[in-house]
Amino acid sequence: MDQEQARRWLRTALDEARAGLDEGGIPIGAALYGADGALLGRGRNRRVQDGDPSAHAETDAFRAAGRQRSYRGTTMVTTLSPCWYCSGLVRQFGISRVVVGEAETFHGGHDWLAGHGVEVVVLDDAECAALMREFIAARPALWNEDIGDE
Amino acid sequence: MDQEQARRWLRTALDEARAGLDEGGIPIGAALYGADGALLGRGRNRRVQDGDPSAHAETDAFRAAGRQRSYRGTTMVTTLSPCWYCSGLVRQFGISRVVVGEAETFHGGHDWLAGHGVEVVVLDDAECAALMREFIAARPALWNEDIGDE
Repeated sequence: MDQEQARRWLRTALDEARAGLDEGGIPIGAALYGADGALLGRGRNRRVQDGDPSAHAETDAFRAAGRQRSYRGTTMVTTLSPCWYCSGLVRQFGISRVVVGEAETFHGGHDWLAGHGVEVVVLDDAECAALMREFIAARPALWNEDIGDE
Repeated sequence: MDQEQARRWLRTALDEARAGLDEGGIPIGAALYGADGALLGRGRNRRVQDGDPSAHAETDAFRAAGRQRSYRGTTMVTTLSPCWYCSGLVRQFGISRVVVGEAETFHGGHDWLAGHGVEVVVLDDAECAALMREFIAARPALWNEDIGDE
């Protein structure tokens, strides 16, 4: 895909991540875009805010998009490489493309998705990486909880 | 694990599935049990009831259990083989065991989980299978929507 468009869409996810940080939450954001480029849903990690461990950013954006008959041609944009849970979401629902802000602070299932026909774009975005690096350094226990790491 | 206990726990998930059917929803239920056998959370598919495509039964049970520091020793009991989304949930959070009511009407990611160290028990439960078989025959479009199948 067009890298300019990918970076533009990433801003939406990054805005969500920053809003989450401002709320005392885990700074990961996501957005789901339709095949026509329309924003279908946006969301962020809500573990702290809602006490909801299932509300990873990608799932929150997917939920916000509501019921859809097809995900063909859609793009999930996320500030961080999707974990197995969110990668499974992408694979099960046939989301066509994943734009990943960064995969440096956490390497999830994006290679697995690429091996199953999903178009994966990793942007190596410095802002996304800095946000997570600072968060992980400041709150390691909360981060480990969010990815089920003891 | 003890098959008697697995079947006893499956009743909780089956009660959830039936409650979902009574509400006009998709009849899949789940429950998360702790290492000590305590019920941590129970839930059901809420796509129709809440208009929430992210509320698969396993995710709903996981959400109901709230934030947990560790999932070591926990068991996810589900009336139906978990899809990739719910299988990803199990893998990411290190849920130790999955009890599957049936994998006849839908074959999800339980073999993948077994290959990644999760203990998987498939019960071939006739009631679970009948519930899904009748539902799929009655509402094929809704079922396809729930698993992202066009």
